Amino acid sequence: MTADLKLSKSAYFVLRSLLTGPKSYWELLLEQETSGRNFIPELRKLLEEELVTQDPSTRKFILTEKGKEFALSHISTPEVVYCPHCKGRGIVLSGRFKDLLHEFKKIASNRPRAIPEYDQGYVEEEVTILRVAYTYLKGDLEGKEILIIGDDDLTGIAMAISGLPKKVMVLEADERIVEYTNQVAKERGLNNLSAEIFDVRDPLPEKHRNAYDTFITDPVETLEGFSLFISRGVAGLRGEGASGYFGLSYVESSFRKWHQLHRRLYDMNLVITDILPHFQHYALNPDDIMNKGYRIVDRLGVEVNYPDVNWYNSAFHRVELVGDPKPHYPADQRIDLGRELYFDDEAYVTLY
Amino acid sequence: MTADLKLSKSAYFVLRSLLTGPKSYWELLLEQETSGRNFIPELRKLLEEELVTQDPSTRKFILTEKGKEFALSHISTPEVVYCPHCKGRGIVLSGRFKDLLHEFKKIASNRPRAIPEYDQGYVEEEVTILRVAYTYLKGDLEGKEILIIGDDDLTGIAMAISGLPKKVMVLEADERIVEYTNQVAKERGLNNLSAEIFDVRDPLPEKHRNAYDTFITDPVETLEGFSLFISRGVAGLRGEGASGYFGLSYVESSFRKWHQLHRRLYDMNLVITDILPHFQHYALNPDDIMNKGYRIVDRLGVEVNYPDVNWYNSAFHRVELVGDPKPHYPADQRIDLGRELYFDDEAYVTLY
Repeated sequence: MTADLKLSKSAYFVLRSLLTGPKSYWELLLEQETSGRNFIPELRKLLEEELVTQDPSTRKFILTEKGKEFALSHISTPEVVYCPHCKGRGIVLSGRFKDLLHEFKKIASNRPRAIPEYDQGYVEEEVTILRVAYTYLKGDLEGKEILIIGDDDLTGIAMAISGLPKKVMVLEADERIVEYTNQVAKERGLNNLSAEIFDVRDPLPEKHRNAYDTFITDPVETLEGFSLFISRGVAGLRGEGASGYFGLSYVESSFRKWHQLHRRLYDMNLVITDILPHFQHYALNPDDIMNKGYRIVDRLGVEVNYPDVNWYNSAFHRVELVGDPKPHYPADQRIDLGRELYFDDEAYVTLY
Repeated sequence: MTADLKLSKSAYFVLRSLLTGPKSYWELLLEQETSGRNFIPELRKLLEEELVTQDPSTRKFILTEKGKEFALSHISTPEVVYCPHCKGRGIVLSGRFKDLLHEFKKIASNRPRAIPEYDQGYVEEEVTILRVAYTYLKGDLEGKEILIIGDDDLTGIAMAISGLPKKVMVLEADERIVEYTNQVAKERGLNNLSAEIFDVRDPLPEKHRNAYDTFITDPVETLEGFSLFISRGVAGLRGEGASGYFGLSYVESSFRKWHQLHRRLYDMNLVITDILPHFQHYALNPDDIMNKGYRIVDRLGVEVNYPDVNWYNSAFHRVELVGDPKPHYPADQRIDLGRELYFDDEAYVTLY
């Protein structure tokens, strides 16, 4: 290694982070902006070059003496840049949204548990409400009709109890979530909320086409799966000025893949207006992560500790229609995607 | 007006904002996410419908009695969502970056003044440093070689005095800025900083092609002008993983135009990884705004007060190469664009 060595982005992030102290695998992943598929070889290389090692008792990663010397000669003392008050998100929950979080937590405590077999995995409760607050800020919530495609996060409930939207329609494949949503709507007299069973591969029912101001989804991240989720959302929108929201992860989608996925958005007459990095954090079950055979664990080749942070995160995207909706997959067609709906080379936190 | 009326996004933002008190034209523009060309008719409509009026002494906009009644029946009490600590940006200046701002302000106090005839207009000094801090956060600054295309903001100087980049090259048409940058470099012994005269319409000199890790620019916002600035930046990049940063305004670029501009990025092998809304605020000269015949003032048809806030703002974009650089305009070609480089239907803060 010479002083002129160009560090890869991943290696730079790891070394910069370890200069501040030991970090678990999960803490390192939290900061990365590369796919797990790309990151694992980078981390292995740092281990093989003996710049980084693991603390044998905690399994956290630390700098070796050699690594410390190398890092100090290449990297200045790390500086915190994220705002500590909002954790870098730029928005905070106060007033009605603080109350909403309190209320939502009570409801979510009885929620149906996530089923990895359905590729479920919901965001932190606070993130659900931050998402709601953001749509409010952007003028996409109050007085609006909202379509939610897939809702293990219970965003539909959160939006409805805010009292702000005119209507919230949840379309979801898991009947437990549909029932739970409708039950909450009934118990709380939320006339603006309802849920229906919907498989994203089926045609979008006619009554839901061109009928909404805003869609929200948390799509699978294969090219075709993503295109399908967004197609259903777009098909639900009224027209120019209508908006959509979704997350896109780093760990299961490289920027190469983002490029492909984003292109599809522009072909659908959508423009990306906001990308908030690392905005959405997911409360995935640590037991599942360790024991389901996910490649994010199995491919590393060294043992790691149980997840100690909510490491899986995604960039929150807002898109807006600049013309008529042009879904990639037509609204009236059933699209028969099998395992390739969920699974590609970068699906490292997804069941085979 | 009925209770079921769908408010336009612009009208909703104006009424929601006026529920919190009187607002100057400039304060209203600051919050908008639509072009001035689209906004002005919306504001005029609210005046004509007598929902909004102007305070005769301050020229600020206020709700009429009718407007107040209407707003209260459609819009709930406005809730602050932006983080007050970082003003919604998600990042803050502390430690070395706080010191950097202090140092930069001293240098910038002697800067060459902006010349509207060159389509100049620089960002607030704090924004220049926030921009530097963001590139650091993203791993695009430390140890990197940086190319700046057009630098009335003096970002090159700010980056160089941070001591973090390996090299900073400023290419700029205005020889005052080139001289000032080289003078500061000399006085402060900044060996990593230099500036050269460059007209973006000229071919990118061969020594600058495929030679940088990061480019930064604040492009003009016509389709061809934007494509040209980004083409020069991209042509300067080494390859996959290299990044670029630029701003895109709301007031001079509708989302329809964003859609066209963004498409060009994807054609150039760039993917957008971050869009931070309203991140960059510009310190434009209020006298120029009022007296240069800009359409943003002249087309409104009512008198307004002198700008009382830094209202002109843009969304900060980060892009990353996912393959080889593919500039829209080849690096070795002179591109003869005339007034259409600067001017289109949405150029409302640009000289004829």
